[in-house]
Amino acid sequence: MTEMLTMKRRTFLTGSAGAVVAAGFAGTAPLARAQDAKPLPDYVAWKDADALIVHSDKTLETKRGAIGTSIITPEEKLYIRNNVNTPPESIVADRDAWAVEFAGVKEPKTLTVAELKTLGLATVATVLQCSGNGRKYFMDQLTGDQKMSGTPWTVGAAGCVLWSGVPLKAVVDALGGPADGVRFITGTGGEELPAGLDPKDLVVERSVPMSNLENVILAWEMNGNPTSLAHGGPLRMIVPGYSGVNNIKYVKTLALTEAETDAKIQRTNYRMHALGEQGSPDDPPVWEQPVRSWITTPLESAAAGPAQVAGVAFGGMNACESVEVSVDGGQNWQKANFVGPDLGRFAWRNFVLSVELAPGSYTLVSRATDTEGNVQPEESEMNGSGYSHNGWRGPAVALTVS
Amino acid sequence: MTEMLTMKRRTFLTGSAGAVVAAGFAGTAPLARAQDAKPLPDYVAWKDADALIVHSDKTLETKRGAIGTSIITPEEKLYIRNNVNTPPESIVADRDAWAVEFAGVKEPKTLTVAELKTLGLATVATVLQCSGNGRKYFMDQLTGDQKMSGTPWTVGAAGCVLWSGVPLKAVVDALGGPADGVRFITGTGGEELPAGLDPKDLVVERSVPMSNLENVILAWEMNGNPTSLAHGGPLRMIVPGYSGVNNIKYVKTLALTEAETDAKIQRTNYRMHALGEQGSPDDPPVWEQPVRSWITTPLESAAAGPAQVAGVAFGGMNACESVEVSVDGGQNWQKANFVGPDLGRFAWRNFVLSVELAPGSYTLVSRATDTEGNVQPEESEMNGSGYSHNGWRGPAVALTVS
Repeated sequence: MTEMLTMKRRTFLTGSAGAVVAAGFAGTAPLARAQDAKPLPDYVAWKDADALIVHSDKTLETKRGAIGTSIITPEEKLYIRNNVNTPPESIVADRDAWAVEFAGVKEPKTLTVAELKTLGLATVATVLQCSGNGRKYFMDQLTGDQKMSGTPWTVGAAGCVLWSGVPLKAVVDALGGPADGVRFITGTGGEELPAGLDPKDLVVERSVPMSNLENVILAWEMNGNPTSLAHGGPLRMIVPGYSGVNNIKYVKTLALTEAETDAKIQRTNYRMHALGEQGSPDDPPVWEQPVRSWITTPLESAAAGPAQVAGVAFGGMNACESVEVSVDGGQNWQKANFVGPDLGRFAWRNFVLSVELAPGSYTLVSRATDTEGNVQPEESEMNGSGYSHNGWRGPAVALTVS
Repeated sequence: MTEMLTMKRRTFLTGSAGAVVAAGFAGTAPLARAQDAKPLPDYVAWKDADALIVHSDKTLETKRGAIGTSIITPEEKLYIRNNVNTPPESIVADRDAWAVEFAGVKEPKTLTVAELKTLGLATVATVLQCSGNGRKYFMDQLTGDQKMSGTPWTVGAAGCVLWSGVPLKAVVDALGGPADGVRFITGTGGEELPAGLDPKDLVVERSVPMSNLENVILAWEMNGNPTSLAHGGPLRMIVPGYSGVNNIKYVKTLALTEAETDAKIQRTNYRMHALGEQGSPDDPPVWEQPVRSWITTPLESAAAGPAQVAGVAFGGMNACESVEVSVDGGQNWQKANFVGPDLGRFAWRNFVLSVELAPGSYTLVSRATDTEGNVQPEESEMNGSGYSHNGWRGPAVALTVS
């Protein structure tokens, strides 16, 4: 077999224009100002510092002005959200040797990536989005403060990514098919957990319904490169349409199970619970992403005359059917055009509306509709952890035209 | 306007596995062996050295084993072919200030990138391919030597890339429409030419028929990043379906013209002329790319059992309709499946055929058909500069299964 690219680290040597451009990226997020910028953590030192807001070592957000219009999010700009520490680089030293234990099938077996590569090949574009993307928009109407704790993501904890790997269905078929009575696909991450604590409280292990069996792929490639350690290499479980946490990095065990895992990250965390309460297994899990969109350009200011108002829109499990744009804060809407190729129902679409803008102040908002007729609401339904925001008012752009 | 990312330079700090993996990439090209590798030139020091064969400072080829299956070719792996020296980095210090002179329209005008950004937005995926890709396969049947001079490209002077920019049609419309009698779109690169020589002998200036007016875009973004200097930033003229040389880097003048330019690169070079002769304006220019495909995995060796034979295929101006794969050097063919989303008629498609391989020797070849019924020939028609190779036998893979 041909070896694939090894892990690599990129150091960005920014030219003298860097500082100026970094300031230009500030957009509407105060955290993005160059003077406040935290350095990139070591494990993602190869990322594009000018394109990212570093909230913490485990939470990095793509700046709104860096999203671009080419559909796919370059790896060096893609957000990062880790629940536990990233494994050592040694796990990507020999990618093909990474082994995954398959259970809940008629013939349970451990297979290496090299073996998985012989069983099938699929490529899918998906919106990879942190469940908490847009949390900052769950605001107290009086104070303007975010209502719940957690990373104050605006729109940048999301990207559209190409994944290549083996369809889980092909693996399950090769292992005799699903065991009787299984209802969930449960993936477990290969992170090393701190000793002395209950592993169930820390393990990244998520269950999603078996209805996803046809969609899930185990991806060794992302955007044409071997999946980087930072994004879950050597092998990541991709559940198209589902929010980020369900896409298990460094997947080590893949079990078809009768019940959802009782790991804390599934049992009580990532649940849609009421504000001020704790999540419980009775609350809906954060699984399918709702329809959503946001504008990426222009931001802040523009010259009077013609302008192209552009952004991204997606429907989670469904394709995005249409997008409307308003330049007056939602009073009047115009249908936008899609831009570029359609990468399938799990991808986002770039959209654009050509407008003529006279000097003045504008509030730009966008509203997407998916193929099932789901429309973004004006305000997102409040929930205690600030998950799955999709209101169209939150990510409004305040634009000054002169 | 939101500023876009500044130019950046990436230095790859390869882990200890790097040398091993570089050797693994060798594929069938002797030049790819790690021990022979030339270093990356400074202006592309940020590229992925492990994924590239450095033929010269101006010619870098993607290794066959590095092409991947995610449709889009990452920028750090994309081939390089320059006819003259790359301009200084200062031209991407303020991308929006780059000015292009438009002529051959009713209202000629010079427009900056910032102004162009207000006029329209399009995103297109195209196969960017050096006109000489596959030249090495124009071989003398007796000696096995390449028949003509020029870079001995195999399959790696090509990639599939996403471009975002303004449609040329929108610009021409904004400038009053085409002048009377124009028949060609002529783009001129912004390279600084050496003094004391006839500029016509050196200028990178190409003309393509006006029939491309609906397709051409002026791209400031590539794969989601501002178009890098190495790939023609701040602004590149993209002629979808046409070979690389027609996609003018650092485009400085865009003229609709009554005749083809008399620059040497158009007048006599990049012409389909007979072997041993010089090109002349009477020979067909190298414009539209013919239907083509090649296998990217497996290369050299594989384990007995199931295998996924994968590759890329495209139809130039037409979508790729189907691909057949043979494991016995073209005696028997099986239809392959396409993999992943379809990025449009100018993009390549990844394909795969699942096979069962017993121990032995195999010759893997692929043969694509486009939507107009054009099929790859077994051998490409000989021409004196080795352009537009598309025979299916040349890029055969000699595979040993054990």
